[in-house]
Amino acid sequence: MNEIQNNLRAVRARPTSKQRVADCDIHPAPRSMEQDIYPHLEKRWQSHLAEYGAPLRSGFQNGTNYPKGQPQASRRDSFLPDGGFPGSDLAFMREQHLDPNNVEFGVMLPLRVGLGLQNQELAAALCRAVNEWQITEWTSKEPRLRGSVMVPYEDPAASVQEIERCAGKPDFVQVEVLSRCAEPLGNRKYWPIFEAAQAAGLPVAVHAFGYGGWAVTGGGWPSYYMEDMVAHSQSMQSLVSSVVFEGVFERFPRTRLVLVEGGLAWLPSLAWRLDRLWSQLRSEVPHVKRPPSEYIREHVWLTSQPIEEPEDRSHIVDVMGWIGWDRVLFASDYPHWDFDDPAHVLPAPLSKEQRQQFFLENARNLYGVGHE
Amino acid sequence: MNEIQNNLRAVRARPTSKQRVADCDIHPAPRSMEQDIYPHLEKRWQSHLAEYGAPLRSGFQNGTNYPKGQPQASRRDSFLPDGGFPGSDLAFMREQHLDPNNVEFGVMLPLRVGLGLQNQELAAALCRAVNEWQITEWTSKEPRLRGSVMVPYEDPAASVQEIERCAGKPDFVQVEVLSRCAEPLGNRKYWPIFEAAQAAGLPVAVHAFGYGGWAVTGGGWPSYYMEDMVAHSQSMQSLVSSVVFEGVFERFPRTRLVLVEGGLAWLPSLAWRLDRLWSQLRSEVPHVKRPPSEYIREHVWLTSQPIEEPEDRSHIVDVMGWIGWDRVLFASDYPHWDFDDPAHVLPAPLSKEQRQQFFLENARNLYGVGHE
Repeated sequence: MNEIQNNLRAVRARPTSKQRVADCDIHPAPRSMEQDIYPHLEKRWQSHLAEYGAPLRSGFQNGTNYPKGQPQASRRDSFLPDGGFPGSDLAFMREQHLDPNNVEFGVMLPLRVGLGLQNQELAAALCRAVNEWQITEWTSKEPRLRGSVMVPYEDPAASVQEIERCAGKPDFVQVEVLSRCAEPLGNRKYWPIFEAAQAAGLPVAVHAFGYGGWAVTGGGWPSYYMEDMVAHSQSMQSLVSSVVFEGVFERFPRTRLVLVEGGLAWLPSLAWRLDRLWSQLRSEVPHVKRPPSEYIREHVWLTSQPIEEPEDRSHIVDVMGWIGWDRVLFASDYPHWDFDDPAHVLPAPLSKEQRQQFFLENARNLYGVGHE
Repeated sequence: MNEIQNNLRAVRARPTSKQRVADCDIHPAPRSMEQDIYPHLEKRWQSHLAEYGAPLRSGFQNGTNYPKGQPQASRRDSFLPDGGFPGSDLAFMREQHLDPNNVEFGVMLPLRVGLGLQNQELAAALCRAVNEWQITEWTSKEPRLRGSVMVPYEDPAASVQEIERCAGKPDFVQVEVLSRCAEPLGNRKYWPIFEAAQAAGLPVAVHAFGYGGWAVTGGGWPSYYMEDMVAHSQSMQSLVSSVVFEGVFERFPRTRLVLVEGGLAWLPSLAWRLDRLWSQLRSEVPHVKRPPSEYIREHVWLTSQPIEEPEDRSHIVDVMGWIGWDRVLFASDYPHWDFDDPAHVLPAPLSKEQRQQFFLENARNLYGVGHE
């Protein structure tokens, strides 16, 4: 552990960043199922997991495989001094991330446990347990952290129950689903989730990845991890198309959709294409009353990580200008390997107001946090 | 047919466009299989078609369905005066498109017949017949038209035979495949096609659509035709990622890839994401020596139709500037319903040189046509 301890010392020595930030994508992890999740899980499901495991939906192949060089998908320096999992210890997260990076508040999106399981009752029980764990181990101990209501989205009725159970708790600022579902996310199958989130006043965050069972590209399964990663941007594009053309924003007009970890620079060209199609063929979707770009500008937020990196960094500023300076949210993806450091994520010259919107104000407004 | 005859008269009365153009996406159609394809098809396959039909690959659902309001996927005014299929008559095509739109040369990409069939021998026989038909009915009669060597791409060995059979014939200026294959296009399965095209000095054109059998999005099958259409852009992004990361441009360095009917505005943001991934993880693909954007700028051309339409049309000029003014090709998609009229496709102010490159010079250079 010498290397890790050295890393930690290096982190402790780093000066605190001047720019206060809201970090809209932090991934906490359980120390172990037994320590952190089982206390919130009925005995029945503990036995079930021991006996049957938690098989993912059929057809799932490599949606969450990570290179072995990035164990736990994480920065090597994010392992705990005792070898524990990255993101599994609040004190270490404070020292390594929240304090030095001047995080005013951070939004947690738990991954893996409970998502995409074949057994839908088990999925619901695990989502509930993960949500309770977010309260007992994180939000009740650290006022800078907020949680996401993880839902078993392939079972919308159970998802609604979980949203209603968590609604009103200040620990949670959004509902969390994944991007590669069994059906495109705008499909009416998922409408009860949008309806319940709207009723609870919570945005719906869509995090990259998923276990729908479909090939990650329209042309089949790619060979490389990098292709799998960039395909997340394409899945995000498909789901925005789906949500717009299914009329989700008309039917649930207070929906706020937050796209997490799919990049953002693809949004303008997508909206231009959607606008053209809609202007030609809107009779196919009479429930869609306005140009797609109008819904997108009103209802969609995007987190920055992994932000695209043009050679000429002013291009990303142009792109964010189109998307809207009030719609882009800083995210680090801590503790994952492709962490974006707030000090370097936007090297292009920005106005003070743009920086403040991107790093802090937009998240404050979206999540209603930090204005006290 | 009165409406059609009125349409035709309206077309004949239209003044000729001043801007000479190369049209890089024209779709000719057989009058009927019996009239146009059977003369080039062995009796054995004629009997086979009568007996067994031509089933598409399993899993194909709606990849080429078109709204009934666009019969034959075509402009209503492109039906022949006698009711014949759009694109099936040279004289009519001259009058309606080549003459009034001042087409210096047009590149034909036949669709449907022969592509994506389960029976691979039948696919090869039909591709060969379609290629012969392009010569006898089109290129031998109209010097402005050039053909594409259609290949049964799921059978690369047969594709190589067909490329070699057609290589050197001035009738053909490129090889044609579709975008949604059984495997991502960069996969080594398809390398013999790239190798043979390079040896023949022919670009490889990838037209939108396909019959690989996968859901068109990573999140499953969408509900609406418009989602299906915009998913073509996402399939194009996936295949560019595949071709780059599989190292096709390193292994076949004279490859010229032409992306047809998938739009173009998505290319910059894709390249930025690919560059970032490559800078972080290039050890996964040691055969990829340079940043993805460099390969893309050297090896990829894009046709314009259906061009994205931002509210502020100067955005599309910015995008084309990033792609490179020497890499964008005008295409009309005649006679299909979403035809782009050269008079209106680029309303934004452009320099005379940019217009000339886009409408004519790039295609002349790529295809080696029109310099005589």
